[in-house]
Amino acid sequence: MAINTVVQADHHAPPVTALLAHFAVSHPSRGWSDAVEREAHRTFANWVGCAIGPSGHDTMAAALASVMELAPSAQAAVLGRRERVDIASAALLNGISSHTFDFDDTHLKTIIHPAGPVAPALLALGEHLRVSGRELIDALVIGIEVSCRVGNAIYPDHYDRGWHITGSTGMLGSAAACARLLKLDAVRTQMAIGIAASQPIGLREQFGTMTKPFHPGGAARVGLMSALMARHGYTASKRALEAPRGLMQVFSSKTDWSQATEGLGDSWEIALNTYKPFACGIVIHPSIDGCVQLREQHGLTPDNIKKVTIKVHSLVLELTGKKTPTNGLESKFSVYHSCAVGLIFGRAGEHEYTDAVVNSPAVLALRAKVEAIVDDRISEAAADVRVQTHDGRDLHIVIEHAIGSTQRPMSETQLKAKFVDQSAPVLGQAKAEESWTLASSLGDCADLGPLLAAATLS
Amino acid sequence: MAINTVVQADHHAPPVTALLAHFAVSHPSRGWSDAVEREAHRTFANWVGCAIGPSGHDTMAAALASVMELAPSAQAAVLGRRERVDIASAALLNGISSHTFDFDDTHLKTIIHPAGPVAPALLALGEHLRVSGRELIDALVIGIEVSCRVGNAIYPDHYDRGWHITGSTGMLGSAAACARLLKLDAVRTQMAIGIAASQPIGLREQFGTMTKPFHPGGAARVGLMSALMARHGYTASKRALEAPRGLMQVFSSKTDWSQATEGLGDSWEIALNTYKPFACGIVIHPSIDGCVQLREQHGLTPDNIKKVTIKVHSLVLELTGKKTPTNGLESKFSVYHSCAVGLIFGRAGEHEYTDAVVNSPAVLALRAKVEAIVDDRISEAAADVRVQTHDGRDLHIVIEHAIGSTQRPMSETQLKAKFVDQSAPVLGQAKAEESWTLASSLGDCADLGPLLAAATLS
Repeated sequence: MAINTVVQADHHAPPVTALLAHFAVSHPSRGWSDAVEREAHRTFANWVGCAIGPSGHDTMAAALASVMELAPSAQAAVLGRRERVDIASAALLNGISSHTFDFDDTHLKTIIHPAGPVAPALLALGEHLRVSGRELIDALVIGIEVSCRVGNAIYPDHYDRGWHITGSTGMLGSAAACARLLKLDAVRTQMAIGIAASQPIGLREQFGTMTKPFHPGGAARVGLMSALMARHGYTASKRALEAPRGLMQVFSSKTDWSQATEGLGDSWEIALNTYKPFACGIVIHPSIDGCVQLREQHGLTPDNIKKVTIKVHSLVLELTGKKTPTNGLESKFSVYHSCAVGLIFGRAGEHEYTDAVVNSPAVLALRAKVEAIVDDRISEAAADVRVQTHDGRDLHIVIEHAIGSTQRPMSETQLKAKFVDQSAPVLGQAKAEESWTLASSLGDCADLGPLLAAATLS
Repeated sequence: MAINTVVQADHHAPPVTALLAHFAVSHPSRGWSDAVEREAHRTFANWVGCAIGPSGHDTMAAALASVMELAPSAQAAVLGRRERVDIASAALLNGISSHTFDFDDTHLKTIIHPAGPVAPALLALGEHLRVSGRELIDALVIGIEVSCRVGNAIYPDHYDRGWHITGSTGMLGSAAACARLLKLDAVRTQMAIGIAASQPIGLREQFGTMTKPFHPGGAARVGLMSALMARHGYTASKRALEAPRGLMQVFSSKTDWSQATEGLGDSWEIALNTYKPFACGIVIHPSIDGCVQLREQHGLTPDNIKKVTIKVHSLVLELTGKKTPTNGLESKFSVYHSCAVGLIFGRAGEHEYTDAVVNSPAVLALRAKVEAIVDDRISEAAADVRVQTHDGRDLHIVIEHAIGSTQRPMSETQLKAKFVDQSAPVLGQAKAEESWTLASSLGDCADLGPLLAAATLS
């Protein structure tokens, strides 16, 4: 595996940092189409549900306990919980929570999880500043644009090197979004992005540990603090992104500047956002979708399955090739486990990735029958699934685009069901449904109070 | 300039993370020679003075104001000031302060500033835990060993790529040191180092801005929080440093594992630490030393100087080649300004890097007469300085090792003078001298209280 490639420094890069900062402060409120506005609300509401779901998880308990050692002030809410913490810690904790089940949104062009580093910073800062729902949604769209634009310019080399791109671009979006909420001018916003550029977060080596969900949370915190520092006159390089020793050239051999700067304000990366129906890495979704569809179409039962053969792109096994996961967290990185639960339960939500399910005899037995074959003629978004049964059937399906992709998006009903499925066990049914209603129409809310009341414990 | 080189992933790296964690928790207290113990105290005391000096600087004012937005609890001291903040913010602020004047210690093998990311985390956590001076010094030696060992293994490629190595290895030393202070076991210490590994800080592009001193401060904060998270059971990759997608392979093409792991506990990187007599980048020091020596030896006055010619390694101009700095901060990255003040004032302390001095007619006039010639036959630690005078003299000196280097270390008297010169304007003469006495004998202090009382304002 070649990690890096030789490149020459580019001393003639366009002023990416300045252009993104100018865009972040000057683009008008609600300056986009209804479709973009709708996707912004889907992004935000899906993120809220994903943050509530794991709020009682061990990962959150450990993170919260460490934050509590600082005796933080009670400035901002932690979703799904009673505790209140300072705004920077709230950004961290809600960001960690939202990625703990690996169930949050995905910008498929870059595999960035866009909301995780941006939304929690805005929710915490927005509560503190008492902003309107409109202001938060505006800043969310713009922050995600900044992260994903930088991501577009440096993906895939940046990711291939070993960076978890969500945390190593997300702090830029968080900084820009928080600068917008703080009404900083373009120069200070440029500084905020610059300060954040020195604090990328995330190695792919951490996948399968609690530090993976730390990445978006840490990036949220970094962006928020960078904006606060810039507000008070802290300085950074004006060319922190594009200079020869700036983030983009140091962290990637690919720097397609036009992807970062052209058509800013005309096209919107948030419009390409997708939401997961399955609580695991996106690259497994086509395989699970195929398994679920074969199960439904042919009434498959586990005891009748003789062999499962999936053909997938090499990236699928590179990211999720754990053959024998031993606990819930590891199982999210196992295409074998995921296919097994898809065939047995017809779904792969968080409940299908618990330690108990991973080690249940039925799942272990079926998992052992799953064979994965690498075939790079198959796209990363696709899968070829074949099931052979004991009664002699040879069933086959090709998934070009999984449910939840931009081509086959989840419906509002499906998104709401996912939200309530995650949050009702934490909040109760009524508050879960109220949280969905408020989150999915936040742009119309005069302030964030009702949502925060519904989405936390009292 | 080639930023990166092609490498193949090394899947057979030794267990660096585990070895460093085991070392950090198990090495005995005061388990080193008197010389190492002495250098540990020089390192700590020099660092305290460097943190007190800039405590009223704009950089600190901006950083402190941003921290105050979090309404932090009053857990720990900020050196040279009245305010108290939470322990993580104290680590950040004292770390920023100590690098603001670029006057702190240097591990010349790697250009790491070792104390900046480690000492402030220990001071804040140590105050909170009420540790003894002995415990703090032990943890300092061990934390610096961890940072510099990793630095040795990946320098120079890591630095050449554009990383400010102080902040991108310092969080590891801070994590290990804080884990030691918290008495974590080896497994949790391994997790602390792993959590920190996902949070490297610092691009060299930031040199000349307030974000440069942010790097050690941010790294101190990251290490402290990583240790607290590990204490509460937060997990990370066990091979976060050495895995193919771990910190060392992702951030460097050079990974000399033996430098990180061989002879741990037998040799000590802190023994190689050096302290700056001049308040600027270490690569300029031989040139300033030459100018100061020629001035003293020959009674040079600015009006009699016709031309100054320095021959230096290319790195000197790469790092400090600013020909026409316009303010104090920029002037620290100007070998031209530095030579001018060395010749005019016979010194180059913080007072010689103010905006007023940078723009004074005498300095501007002499600066314009300084020519720098790159000659890579000259070592990075050396300089060849030649001064021609209007009265026809042609003076020449070759500096092989500048004052402050390991070969020509500053004496205790010089270190104390540097300490008091920085801290007396902040604390007053009596408290400054008391702070020196306590800091330079901290291992004998039962607790940190007297030092913190002397080194802060009441």
